[in-house]
Amino acid sequence: MRTEISSIGKQAVLQRLFENSGFTNGQPVRLKQKGECCTAQKLMLEGCDFDLVYTPLKHLGYKAVLNVLGELYATLHQPASLSVVLGLSKRFCFEDVADLWEGMLAACREHGVSQLSLDLNPSVNGLAIALAACGVQKKGVIDKVPRTKNMDLICLSGHVGAAYMGLHVLEREKVAFTSSGEQPDLSKYKAVLGSYLSPEIKPGIIDRFVEADVLPSNGYFLTRGLGEAILRLSRDTGLGAKIYLEKIPISSQTFAMAEEIDMDAVTAAMNGGDDYKFIFTVPLGKHDVIRKDFQDFEVIGHMARPDVGAVLVTPEGAELPIHAQGF
Amino acid sequence: MRTEISSIGKQAVLQRLFENSGFTNGQPVRLKQKGECCTAQKLMLEGCDFDLVYTPLKHLGYKAVLNVLGELYATLHQPASLSVVLGLSKRFCFEDVADLWEGMLAACREHGVSQLSLDLNPSVNGLAIALAACGVQKKGVIDKVPRTKNMDLICLSGHVGAAYMGLHVLEREKVAFTSSGEQPDLSKYKAVLGSYLSPEIKPGIIDRFVEADVLPSNGYFLTRGLGEAILRLSRDTGLGAKIYLEKIPISSQTFAMAEEIDMDAVTAAMNGGDDYKFIFTVPLGKHDVIRKDFQDFEVIGHMARPDVGAVLVTPEGAELPIHAQGF
Repeated sequence: MRTEISSIGKQAVLQRLFENSGFTNGQPVRLKQKGECCTAQKLMLEGCDFDLVYTPLKHLGYKAVLNVLGELYATLHQPASLSVVLGLSKRFCFEDVADLWEGMLAACREHGVSQLSLDLNPSVNGLAIALAACGVQKKGVIDKVPRTKNMDLICLSGHVGAAYMGLHVLEREKVAFTSSGEQPDLSKYKAVLGSYLSPEIKPGIIDRFVEADVLPSNGYFLTRGLGEAILRLSRDTGLGAKIYLEKIPISSQTFAMAEEIDMDAVTAAMNGGDDYKFIFTVPLGKHDVIRKDFQDFEVIGHMARPDVGAVLVTPEGAELPIHAQGF
Repeated sequence: MRTEISSIGKQAVLQRLFENSGFTNGQPVRLKQKGECCTAQKLMLEGCDFDLVYTPLKHLGYKAVLNVLGELYATLHQPASLSVVLGLSKRFCFEDVADLWEGMLAACREHGVSQLSLDLNPSVNGLAIALAACGVQKKGVIDKVPRTKNMDLICLSGHVGAAYMGLHVLEREKVAFTSSGEQPDLSKYKAVLGSYLSPEIKPGIIDRFVEADVLPSNGYFLTRGLGEAILRLSRDTGLGAKIYLEKIPISSQTFAMAEEIDMDAVTAAMNGGDDYKFIFTVPLGKHDVIRKDFQDFEVIGHMARPDVGAVLVTPEGAELPIHAQGF
């Protein structure tokens, strides 16, 4: 089934997408919630940020919404509104947009987005997804957030590197499929593929911090690799940061996959990207609370004096400077 | 002079762009202003929304910022923050981005944007510009905005159709230049070209409304034609709207150009797009204030009963239904 967008018109498409969604389409979006307000924005372009050969549109929609909401969570703001603009080339029909939108709606519902807007634009080449989100937090909470200091703990919300491995498998099998035409058996890579194609964020994260009276001083959402986030942390705070190599959580499937492709698993974890995890800095004094109430978090290092820079500490004690990768 | 972005790296590019700009790059953006908050978002894609063959990057940057801020002004919100993500293919060098950014900075300064963020993403094809803006307004002002009623006046903030004519000239001369190689003489089209390439918005618009105690009930920023905006107005309010053909302000240059290309000037005005003007609805009782204090506005029609629909009334009294154009 393929319904051309031009055959029903943009307005009718938007109407159908919002029908029974529980949301009303409104642009510009007037924020209803009270409190301190924070905005985040992401742009995802086909061919650079995703490949539709192996990414189901529904998964992509879900992931795209997390991609922007993650930035709000990282600064302790609860998602409130989301505005999406899609750039669509003629390749995309109504059913495609409906699939993408279904994933987006699912993520919005899970994360308590209460106001939503969607607009459609023509595009010459492929799919473009622009997302802008607004989050809120009580002034009382924001005012209590401490400044990051030397020796603050750097905590990571889960294992990293798996999404990169998933992407690697998908790219490899795409090449194999293109030359042989045979559908690959991907069952043994389920965990790493899931990390890449359908990452998750636990919606309750901020409430947990507030309830435990642990307000992270700096937070980052990991989409471009742990290394890049540590560099940003160091730059934003004007401090150094030490990450201990053996503390970085890496899943057994990531290690297995790294061995299979003869790649260093730590390199994948540092530079991989698409992890959709968080790093947060918390005062050293909160160490016991983190160990007790945030067992899904791993303390992977600590802030340091500015002259230390951002470094990866090997088990032998060598300090390797962390470098920026990519664009 | 051509400096490849990859040769200096993204971070250094961002640093140079913000140097001496008076702004600090921060994403996500925490809104500092108090009041009711409103967000707007636009996505502009090369090949659909602009053509770099005849659009200077600096003009494009300026116009792109107005494109998103206009949506805030339309709902009476003062621009506060702006977040920009650029998708850049390898065709674009640092100097290109710097030109585009210069135009963006100029628009931000003129319109009182106090917080600004920029991010750069790779793109396979051409330039993509994603803009998300946040505006604020005092709760007391927003609470006083009346509901749009039958017989409310529909006011337009300037003449329309000129930008479409400018685009038409540019497209025509591009074709001529491609076949002949001769640089066209565009001096006689200066006014319509200016309307398309460097539209303006007067920053004081909201203050004027507040000071005159005229708070428009509905406002729309004209980027896709007057006709489309009237349809949205009718849809959003559940009312009809009558626009009087002979009241639509059209510049003499637009009329001249329409004659030259044998096109109906009113059709250009209704469907043209890129006008960067506003329509506002105001209560009928404010008629005298509008005539006296808002002489740059033209009353082009009024709201009507729902069964009237959105119509264009000819000088002979015929009512032509307004139809949606484009995507």
